[in-house]
Amino acid sequence: MQQAVETLTISSEGQGLYEFTGALRQFVTAADVATGLVTAYVRHTSCSLLIQENADPDVKTDLDGFFRRLVPEGMDWLVHTTEGPDDMPAHIKAALTQTSIGIPVIGGEPAFGAWQGIYLFEHRRRPHRREVILHIIGDR
Amino acid sequence: MQQAVETLTISSEGQGLYEFTGALRQFVTAADVATGLVTAYVRHTSCSLLIQENADPDVKTDLDGFFRRLVPEGMDWLVHTTEGPDDMPAHIKAALTQTSIGIPVIGGEPAFGAWQGIYLFEHRRRPHRREVILHIIGDR
Amino acid sequence: MQQAVETLTISSEGQGLYEFTGALRQFVTAADVATGLVTAYVRHTSCSLLIQENADPDVKTDLDGFFRRLVPEGMDWLVHTTEGPDDMPAHIKAALTQTSIGIPVIGGEPAFGAWQGIYLFEHRRRPHRREVILHIIGDR
Repeated sequence: MQQAVETLTISSEGQGLYEFTGALRQFVTAADVATGLVTAYVRHTSCSLLIQENADPDVKTDLDGFFRRLVPEGMDWLVHTTEGPDDMPAHIKAALTQTSIGIPVIGGEPAFGAWQGIYLFEHRRRPHRREVILHIIGDR
Repeated sequence: MQQAVETLTISSEGQGLYEFTGALRQFVTAADVATGLVTAYVRHTSCSLLIQENADPDVKTDLDGFFRRLVPEGMDWLVHTTEGPDDMPAHIKAALTQTSIGIPVIGGEPAFGAWQGIYLFEHRRRPHRREVILHIIGDR
Repeated sequence: MQQAVETLTISSEGQGLYEFTGALRQFVTAADVATGLVTAYVRHTSCSLLIQENADPDVKTDLDGFFRRLVPEGMDWLVHTTEGPDDMPAHIKAALTQTSIGIPVIGGEPAFGAWQGIYLFEHRRRPHRREVILHIIGDR
Protein backbone atom coordinates (compact mmCIF):
# COMPACT_ATOMS: atom_id res chain seq x y z
CA MET A 1 0.00 0.00 0.00
CA GLN A 2 1.36 3.41 -0.88
CA GLN A 3 0.39 7.07 -0.84
CA ALA A 4 1.24 10.30 -2.63
CA VAL A 5 0.28 13.92 -2.01
CA GLU A 6 0.57 16.97 -4.25
CA THR A 7 -0.59 20.58 -4.10
CA LEU A 8 -2.05 21.84 -7.34
CA THR A 9 -2.25 25.62 -7.85
CA ILE A 10 -5.05 26.83 -10.11
CA SER A 11 -5.20 30.46 -11.22
CA SER A 12 -8.75 31.70 -11.60
CA GLU A 13 -9.75 34.83 -13.51
CA GLY A 14 -13.24 35.41 -12.21
CA GLN A 15 -16.33 33.30 -11.55
CA GLY A 16 -16.82 30.05 -13.39
CA LEU A 17 -15.59 26.46 -13.76
CA TYR A 18 -11.91 25.62 -14.32
CA GLU A 19 -11.21 22.05 -15.35
CA PHE A 20 -8.23 20.16 -13.88
CA THR A 21 -9.05 16.63 -15.02
CA GLY A 22 -5.72 16.37 -16.86
CA ALA A 23 -3.67 17.35 -13.82
CA LEU A 24 -5.51 14.84 -11.64
CA ARG A 25 -4.96 12.08 -14.21
CA GLN A 26 -1.24 12.93 -14.32
CA PHE A 27 -1.05 12.78 -10.54
CA VAL A 28 -2.61 9.31 -10.53
CA THR A 29 -0.29 8.08 -13.29
CA ALA A 30 2.82 9.44 -11.53
CA ALA A 31 1.76 7.81 -8.24
CA ASP A 32 1.88 4.42 -9.94
CA VAL A 33 -1.26 3.17 -8.17
CA ALA A 34 -3.37 0.54 -9.97
CA THR A 35 -6.21 0.27 -7.45
CA GLY A 36 -7.00 2.91 -4.86
CA LEU A 37 -8.75 6.13 -3.94
CA VAL A 38 -7.76 9.62 -5.06
CA THR A 39 -9.12 12.65 -3.18
CA ALA A 40 -9.21 16.27 -4.36
CA TYR A 41 -9.56 18.83 -1.56
CA VAL A 42 -9.77 22.61 -1.95
CA ARG A 43 -8.23 24.74 0.82
CA HIS A 44 -10.65 27.68 0.45
CA THR A 45 -14.25 28.54 1.33
CA SER A 46 -15.12 30.95 -1.49
CA CYS A 47 -14.51 28.43 -4.28
CA SER A 48 -15.39 24.74 -4.45
CA LEU A 49 -15.10 21.49 -6.42
CA LEU A 50 -17.50 19.86 -8.84
CA ILE A 51 -17.57 16.85 -11.11
CA GLN A 52 -19.55 17.73 -14.22
CA GLU A 53 -19.96 17.10 -17.92
CA ASN A 54 -16.91 18.15 -19.92
CA ALA A 55 -18.34 17.54 -23.41
CA ASP A 56 -20.39 20.71 -24.02
CA PRO A 57 -18.95 23.94 -22.55
CA ASP A 58 -22.51 25.34 -22.38
CA VAL A 59 -23.01 23.16 -19.30
CA LYS A 60 -20.39 25.26 -17.48
CA THR A 61 -22.13 28.47 -18.54
CA ASP A 62 -25.50 27.25 -17.29
CA LEU A 63 -24.14 25.94 -13.99
CA ASP A 64 -22.54 29.31 -13.34
CA GLY A 65 -25.79 31.03 -14.42
CA PHE A 66 -27.92 28.94 -12.08
CA PHE A 67 -25.75 29.57 -9.02
CA ARG A 68 -25.61 33.32 -9.75
CA ARG A 69 -29.43 33.39 -9.79
CA LEU A 70 -29.86 31.15 -6.75
CA VAL A 71 -27.33 33.14 -4.69
CA PRO A 72 -27.37 36.67 -6.13
CA GLU A 73 -25.24 39.55 -4.94
CA GLY A 74 -27.11 42.21 -3.00
CA MET A 75 -29.27 40.07 -0.68
CA ASP A 76 -30.01 42.83 1.84
CA TRP A 77 -30.23 40.60 4.93
CA LEU A 78 -26.57 39.50 4.76
CA VAL A 79 -24.36 40.61 7.66
CA HIS A 80 -20.93 39.40 6.40
CA THR A 81 -20.36 42.14 3.83
CA THR A 82 -16.92 43.58 4.65
CA GLU A 83 -15.06 41.53 2.05
CA GLY A 84 -17.16 42.72 -0.90
CA PRO A 85 -20.59 41.94 -2.40
CA ASP A 86 -19.37 38.70 -3.98
CA ASP A 87 -17.83 37.25 -0.80
CA MET A 88 -20.78 35.93 1.20
CA PRO A 89 -22.54 34.61 -1.96
CA ALA A 90 -19.23 32.82 -2.64
CA HIS A 91 -19.31 31.10 0.76
CA ILE A 92 -22.93 30.05 0.18
CA LYS A 93 -22.19 28.66 -3.30
CA ALA A 94 -19.27 26.72 -1.80
CA ALA A 95 -21.61 25.29 0.88
CA LEU A 96 -24.01 24.14 -1.86
CA THR A 97 -21.28 22.30 -3.79
CA GLN A 98 -18.20 20.35 -2.56
CA THR A 99 -14.92 21.00 -0.76
CA SER A 100 -13.69 17.43 -1.18
CA ILE A 101 -14.32 14.67 -3.73
CA GLY A 102 -13.06 11.07 -3.57
CA ILE A 103 -12.69 9.09 -6.80
CA PRO A 104 -11.89 5.36 -6.98
CA VAL A 105 -8.84 4.40 -9.05
CA ILE A 106 -9.17 1.29 -11.23
CA GLY A 107 -6.57 -0.02 -13.66
CA GLY A 108 -4.35 2.95 -12.88
CA GLU A 109 -6.99 5.50 -13.88
CA PRO A 110 -9.50 7.61 -11.93
CA ALA A 111 -12.91 6.00 -12.54
CA PHE A 112 -14.43 9.00 -14.36
CA GLY A 113 -17.40 8.28 -16.57
CA ALA A 114 -17.09 8.99 -20.31
CA TRP A 115 -18.25 12.62 -20.00
CA GLN A 116 -17.06 13.48 -16.52
CA GLY A 117 -14.45 16.09 -15.70
CA ILE A 118 -13.40 17.66 -12.38
CA TYR A 119 -13.56 21.41 -11.90
CA LEU A 120 -12.57 24.17 -9.55
CA PHE A 121 -15.71 26.30 -9.23
CA GLU A 122 -14.53 29.88 -8.59
CA HIS A 123 -17.11 32.07 -6.85
CA ARG A 124 -15.08 35.31 -6.53
CA ARG A 125 -14.78 37.94 -9.25
CA ARG A 126 -11.15 38.91 -8.85
CA PRO A 127 -8.24 36.68 -9.92
CA HIS A 128 -7.15 34.18 -7.26
CA ARG A 129 -4.53 31.48 -6.89
CA ARG A 130 -6.32 28.44 -5.47
CA GLU A 131 -4.73 25.43 -3.79
CA VAL A 132 -6.17 21.98 -4.43
CA ILE A 133 -4.60 19.13 -2.47
CA LEU A 134 -4.46 15.78 -4.29
CA HIS A 135 -4.05 12.64 -2.16
CA ILE A 136 -3.93 9.04 -3.32
CA ILE A 137 -3.78 5.77 -1.42
CA GLY A 138 -3.66 2.33 -3.01
CA ASP A 139 -1.72 -0.61 -4.40
CA ARG A 140 0.54 -1.04 -7.40
CA MET B 1 -4.52 -3.69 4.43
CA GLN B 2 -6.72 -4.76 1.55
CA GLN B 3 -8.99 -3.31 -1.11
CA ALA B 4 -11.94 -4.32 -3.27
CA VAL B 5 -13.74 -2.65 -6.17
CA GLU B 6 -17.08 -3.42 -7.77
CA THR B 7 -19.32 -1.77 -10.35
CA LEU B 8 -22.97 -1.69 -9.41
CA THR B 9 -25.50 -1.15 -12.21
CA ILE B 10 -28.75 0.52 -11.17
CA SER B 11 -31.68 0.73 -13.58
CA SER B 12 -33.70 3.91 -13.14
CA GLU B 13 -37.21 4.43 -14.47
CA GLY B 14 -37.52 8.17 -14.26
CA GLN B 15 -36.74 10.87 -11.69
CA GLY B 16 -36.51 9.97 -8.04
CA LEU B 17 -34.45 8.16 -5.40
CA TYR B 18 -33.35 4.53 -5.82
CA GLU B 19 -31.96 2.91 -2.67
CA PHE B 20 -28.90 0.62 -2.87
CA THR B 21 -28.09 0.30 0.84
CA GLY B 22 -28.41 -3.49 0.65
CA ALA B 23 -25.99 -3.82 -2.27
CA LEU B 24 -23.44 -1.61 -0.51
CA ARG B 25 -23.74 -3.68 2.69
CA GLN B 26 -23.24 -6.88 0.69
CA PHE B 27 -20.15 -5.41 -0.95
CA VAL B 28 -18.66 -4.55 2.47
CA THR B 29 -19.45 -8.01 3.84
CA ALA B 30 -17.94 -9.76 0.82
CA ALA B 31 -14.78 -7.66 1.07
CA ASP B 32 -14.19 -9.03 4.57
CA VAL B 33 -13.02 -5.67 5.94
CA ALA B 34 -13.59 -5.00 9.66
CA THR B 35 -12.29 -1.41 9.79
CA GLY B 36 -11.96 0.82 6.77
CA LEU B 37 -13.54 3.28 4.37
CA VAL B 38 -16.06 2.45 1.65
CA THR B 39 -16.66 4.95 -1.17
CA ALA B 40 -19.61 5.08 -3.57
CA TYR B 41 -18.97 7.02 -6.78
CA VAL B 42 -21.43 7.62 -9.62
CA ARG B 43 -20.00 7.81 -13.16
CA HIS B 44 -22.62 10.23 -14.52
CA THR B 45 -23.44 13.94 -14.29
CA SER B 46 -27.24 13.84 -14.69
CA CYS B 47 -27.83 11.70 -11.60
CA SER B 48 -26.17 11.81 -8.20
CA LEU B 49 -25.83 10.19 -4.77
CA LEU B 50 -27.51 10.99 -1.49
CA ILE B 51 -27.63 9.58 2.01
CA GLN B 52 -31.11 10.11 3.40
CA GLU B 53 -33.77 8.74 5.71
CA ASN B 54 -35.05 5.34 4.63
CA ALA B 55 -37.83 4.97 7.21
CA ASP B 56 -40.67 7.02 5.64
CA PRO B 57 -40.90 6.90 1.81
CA ASP B 58 -42.56 10.34 1.89
CA VAL B 59 -39.09 11.79 2.48
CA LYS B 60 -38.08 10.60 -1.01
CA THR B 61 -41.20 12.17 -2.52
CA ASP B 62 -40.51 15.52 -0.86
CA LEU B 63 -36.81 15.55 -1.74
CA ASP B 64 -37.71 14.95 -5.37
CA GLY B 65 -40.45 17.62 -5.12
CA PHE B 66 -38.08 20.20 -3.68
CA PHE B 67 -35.42 19.74 -6.34
CA ARG B 68 -38.04 19.88 -9.14
CA ARG B 69 -39.21 23.23 -7.76
CA LEU B 70 -35.71 24.60 -7.13
CA VAL B 71 -34.48 23.60 -10.60
CA PRO B 72 -37.56 23.54 -12.84
CA GLU B 73 -37.61 22.63 -16.50
CA GLY B 74 -38.12 25.54 -18.86
CA MET B 75 -35.75 28.15 -17.36
CA ASP B 76 -35.53 30.33 -20.47
CA TRP B 77 -31.94 31.54 -19.94
CA LEU B 78 -30.40 28.05 -20.31
CA VAL B 79 -28.12 27.54 -23.32
CA HIS B 80 -27.45 23.78 -23.00
CA THR B 81 -30.80 22.56 -24.32
CA THR B 82 -29.97 20.11 -27.11
CA GLU B 83 -30.32 16.99 -24.95
CA GLY B 84 -33.88 17.76 -23.85
CA PRO B 85 -35.61 20.01 -21.29
CA ASP B 86 -34.70 17.73 -18.35
CA ASP B 87 -30.97 17.53 -19.18
CA MET B 88 -29.53 20.82 -17.91
CA PRO B 89 -31.77 20.78 -14.79
CA ALA B 90 -30.37 17.27 -14.22
CA HIS B 91 -26.77 18.57 -14.29
CA ILE B 92 -27.69 21.35 -11.86
CA LYS B 93 -29.42 18.96 -9.44
CA ALA B 94 -26.34 16.73 -9.59
CA ALA B 95 -24.12 19.75 -8.76
CA LEU B 96 -26.32 20.49 -5.72
CA THR B 97 -26.01 16.95 -4.36
CA GLN B 98 -23.07 14.46 -4.42
CA THR B 99 -21.10 12.44 -6.95
CA SER B 100 -19.07 10.62 -4.31
CA ILE B 101 -19.72 9.62 -0.67
CA GLY B 102 -17.22 8.02 1.73
CA ILE B 103 -18.54 5.97 4.66
CA PRO B 104 -16.39 4.61 7.50
CA VAL B 105 -16.59 0.85 8.09
CA ILE B 106 -16.65 -0.30 11.73
CA GLY B 107 -17.09 -3.86 12.93
CA GLY B 108 -17.47 -5.04 9.35
CA GLU B 109 -20.45 -2.73 8.66
CA PRO B 110 -20.82 0.67 6.98
CA ALA B 111 -21.38 3.16 9.82
CA PHE B 112 -24.90 4.17 8.72
CA GLY B 113 -27.10 5.71 11.40
CA ALA B 114 -30.30 3.92 12.37
CA TRP B 115 -32.41 5.63 9.68
CA GLN B 116 -29.83 6.24 6.98
CA GLY B 117 -29.88 4.71 3.54
CA ILE B 118 -27.85 5.47 0.39
CA TYR B 119 -29.62 6.39 -2.84
CA LEU B 120 -29.03 7.00 -6.48
CA PHE B 121 -30.86 10.24 -7.22
CA GLU B 122 -32.00 10.04 -10.86
CA HIS B 123 -32.61 13.43 -12.49
CA ARG B 124 -33.58 12.28 -16.03
CA ARG B 125 -37.07 11.24 -17.08
CA ARG B 126 -36.24 8.35 -19.37
CA PRO B 127 -35.00 4.96 -18.14
CA HIS B 128 -31.22 4.78 -17.68
CA ARG B 129 -28.68 2.20 -16.59
CA ARG B 130 -26.40 3.92 -14.08
CA GLU B 131 -22.96 2.79 -12.95
CA VAL B 132 -21.96 3.24 -9.32
CA ILE B 133 -18.39 2.27 -8.42
CA LEU B 134 -17.92 0.83 -4.94
CA HIS B 135 -14.40 0.91 -3.46
CA ILE B 136 -13.25 -0.27 -0.05
CA ILE B 137 -9.93 -0.07 1.73
CA GLY B 138 -9.24 -1.41 5.20
CA ASP B 139 -8.11 -4.19 7.52
CA ARG B 140 -9.58 -7.58 8.39
CA MET C 1 -0.33 1.70 7.12
CA GLN C 2 -2.64 2.21 10.09
CA GLN C 3 -6.17 3.28 10.91
CA ALA C 4 -8.14 4.76 13.79
CA VAL C 5 -11.85 5.36 14.35
CA GLU C 6 -13.64 7.48 16.94
CA THR C 7 -17.23 8.59 17.54
CA LEU C 8 -17.59 12.24 18.41
CA THR C 9 -20.81 13.34 20.13
CA ILE C 10 -21.87 16.93 19.48
CA SER C 11 -24.72 18.50 21.46
CA SER C 12 -26.71 20.96 19.38
CA GLU C 13 -29.06 23.57 20.84
CA GLY C 14 -31.06 24.51 17.78
CA GLN C 15 -30.34 25.35 14.15
CA GLY C 16 -26.92 26.64 13.16
CA LEU C 17 -23.25 25.69 12.73
CA TYR C 18 -21.24 23.98 15.49
CA GLU C 19 -17.49 23.88 14.92
CA PHE C 20 -15.50 20.74 15.77
CA THR C 21 -12.19 21.57 14.08
CA GLY C 22 -10.32 21.19 17.38
CA ALA C 23 -11.71 17.71 18.07
CA LEU C 24 -10.83 16.58 14.54
CA ARG C 25 -7.29 17.93 14.93
CA GLN C 26 -6.90 16.10 18.24
CA PHE C 27 -8.10 12.88 16.64
CA VAL C 28 -5.48 13.21 13.88
CA THR C 29 -2.72 13.97 16.39
CA ALA C 30 -3.66 11.02 18.62
CA ALA C 31 -3.73 8.67 15.60
CA ASP C 32 -0.06 9.47 14.96
CA VAL C 33 -0.51 9.55 11.17
CA ALA C 34 1.85 11.78 9.18
CA THR C 35 0.34 11.26 5.72
CA GLY C 36 -3.17 10.00 5.13
CA LEU C 37 -6.86 10.71 4.75
CA VAL C 38 -9.25 11.63 7.57
CA THR C 39 -13.01 11.31 6.99
CA ALA C 40 -15.81 12.88 9.03
CA TYR C 41 -19.20 11.21 8.64
CA VAL C 42 -22.47 12.23 10.30
CA ARG C 43 -24.92 9.44 11.21
CA HIS C 44 -28.08 11.54 10.78
CA THR C 45 -30.21 12.94 7.95
CA SER C 46 -31.55 16.11 9.58
CA CYS C 47 -28.14 17.66 10.19
CA SER C 48 -25.06 17.71 7.98
CA LEU C 49 -21.38 18.65 7.64
CA LEU C 50 -19.76 21.71 6.14
CA ILE C 51 -16.28 23.13 5.78
CA GLN C 52 -16.50 26.91 6.01
CA GLU C 53 -14.70 30.06 7.06
CA ASN C 54 -14.03 30.19 10.79
CA ALA C 55 -12.62 33.72 10.95
CA ASP C 56 -15.80 35.87 11.00
CA PRO C 57 -18.79 34.37 12.90
CA ASP C 58 -21.11 36.41 10.65
CA VAL C 59 -20.45 33.82 7.93
CA LYS C 60 -22.21 31.21 10.09
CA THR C 61 -25.17 33.55 10.63
CA ASP C 62 -25.54 34.19 6.90
CA LEU C 63 -25.18 30.53 5.92
CA ASP C 64 -27.93 29.64 8.35
CA GLY C 65 -30.01 32.58 7.06
CA PHE C 66 -29.63 31.53 3.44
CA PHE C 67 -30.67 27.93 4.03
CA ARG C 68 -33.69 29.04 6.12
CA ARG C 69 -34.82 31.20 3.20
CA LEU C 70 -34.08 28.59 0.51
CA VAL C 71 -35.88 25.83 2.43
CA PRO C 72 -38.49 27.57 4.60
CA GLU C 73 -40.84 25.86 6.99
CA GLY C 74 -44.46 25.73 5.85
CA MET C 75 -44.04 24.70 2.19
CA ASP C 76 -47.61 23.48 1.70
CA TRP C 77 -46.83 20.75 -0.83
CA LEU C 78 -44.73 18.66 1.62
CA VAL C 79 -46.14 15.23 2.54
CA HIS C 80 -43.60 14.19 5.24
CA THR C 81 -44.93 16.40 8.04
CA THR C 82 -45.51 14.04 10.99
CA GLU C 83 -42.19 14.81 12.71
CA GLY C 84 -42.79 18.57 12.89
CA PRO C 85 -42.54 21.58 10.55
CA ASP C 86 -38.73 21.69 10.78
CA ASP C 87 -38.17 18.01 9.93
CA MET C 88 -38.60 17.81 6.15
CA PRO C 89 -36.80 21.15 5.61
CA ALA C 90 -33.99 19.61 7.71
CA HIS C 91 -33.73 16.61 5.37
CA ILE C 92 -33.65 18.92 2.34
CA LYS C 93 -30.92 21.14 3.86
CA ALA C 94 -28.92 18.00 4.63
CA ALA C 95 -29.30 16.88 0.99
CA LEU C 96 -27.98 20.27 -0.17
CA THR C 97 -24.86 20.04 2.00
CA GLN C 98 -22.68 17.03 3.00
CA THR C 99 -22.97 13.87 5.06
CA SER C 100 -19.29 12.94 4.63
CA ILE C 101 -16.09 14.96 4.07
CA GLY C 102 -12.61 13.57 3.40
CA ILE C 103 -9.57 15.70 4.24
CA PRO C 104 -5.97 14.83 3.32
CA VAL C 105 -3.48 14.68 6.20
CA ILE C 106 -0.04 16.16 5.54
CA GLY C 107 2.76 16.50 8.08
CA GLY C 108 0.51 15.10 10.77
CA GLU C 109 -2.17 17.78 10.29
CA PRO C 110 -5.47 17.90 8.37
CA ALA C 111 -4.81 20.04 5.27
CA PHE C 112 -7.24 22.83 6.23
CA GLY C 113 -6.65 26.17 4.58
CA ALA C 114 -5.83 29.17 6.79
CA TRP C 115 -9.48 30.11 7.35
CA GLN C 116 -11.18 26.74 7.10
CA GLY C 117 -13.04 25.04 9.93
CA ILE C 118 -15.33 21.99 9.95
CA TYR C 119 -18.86 22.28 11.27
CA LEU C 120 -21.88 20.23 12.20
CA PHE C 121 -24.78 22.03 10.54
CA GLU C 122 -27.84 21.41 12.73
CA HIS C 123 -31.17 21.76 10.91
CA ARG C 124 -33.58 20.88 13.78
CA ARG C 125 -34.84 23.36 16.37
CA ARG C 126 -34.78 21.17 19.44
CA PRO C 127 -31.58 20.08 21.23
CA HIS C 128 -30.02 16.92 19.79
CA ARG C 129 -27.01 14.74 20.49
CA ARG C 130 -25.33 14.09 17.14
CA GLU C 131 -22.83 11.37 16.30
CA VAL C 132 -19.96 12.15 13.94
CA ILE C 133 -17.69 9.24 13.04
CA LEU C 134 -14.03 10.12 12.49
CA HIS C 135 -11.90 7.68 10.48
CA ILE C 136 -8.25 8.00 9.52
CA ILE C 137 -6.02 5.85 7.35
CA GLY C 138 -2.36 6.55 6.64
CA ASP C 139 1.32 6.15 7.47
CA ARG C 140 3.45 7.29 10.39
